Amino acid sequence: MSSREVDFSLLAKAGYPIQQHEESEIIFSDGDDGDYMFLVRAGSVDIIRNGAVVETVGPGGIFGEMALIDGSPRSATAKVSEPCELVAIPEKGFLFMVHETPYFALDVMRTLSERLRVMNQLV
Amino acid sequence: MSSREVDFSLLAKAGYPIQQHEESEIIFSDGDDGDYMFLVRAGSVDIIRNGAVVETVGPGGIFGEMALIDGSPRSATAKVSEPCELVAIPEKGFLFMVHETPYFALDVMRTLSERLRVMNQLV
Repeated sequence: MSSREVDFSLLAKAGYPIQQHEESEIIFSDGDDGDYMFLVRAGSVDIIRNGAVVETVGPGGIFGEMALIDGSPRSATAKVSEPCELVAIPEKGFLFMVHETPYFALDVMRTLSERLRVMNQLV
Repeated sequence: MSSREVDFSLLAKAGYPIQQHEESEIIFSDGDDGDYMFLVRAGSVDIIRNGAVVETVGPGGIFGEMALIDGSPRSATAKVSEPCELVAIPEKGFLFMVHETPYFALDVMRTLSERLRVMNQLV
């Protein structure tokens, strides 16, 4: 398999609502129920666990997908680090993308895999 | 999405080669190139990172999928903890399953997501 860059920007063209957020806004908090995943179109969002930034997601990246995958509450807090534009993708849209576009599924897997490799370095 | 148990046992019926392994055999080592993922049909396999067992994969579970997803070397060592039967699934088979069976893709995502949640507890 090629190790091409993961890029979810095509999702921005799928007609889901676009949200504008100011710096320091909380998109969701650890423990919340999660009904959406988010694509960053512009700006950036910090993923915060136990008070520490574990990842900063920039343009073309996604976050919040885990709650859609396994139905568990949010496992981290997402806070805007630079004013941003987000595309909010509901569970139904996520499942549609997985079913209809295998490359999307592989890109989500690559994102999770990349995060696991980062976490592995920390433990 | 339902939070049904992840179960890859259908993979066992897809005609991929079945391997028998004795206790303590090394299936792959950290740093190896990875061309296969594995389904455990019977027995169990320890996933070892920096000398510590981070997960024990039993019947119905998979391991070694990360190298197929992102093309990176193995990030852990897999060592048989109980005599086991494994189904070895090549990259081509993995991609075929992702393309043809969206539930397989979702189950792989659930497995990765579950591992991330476990890692998050450790950091």
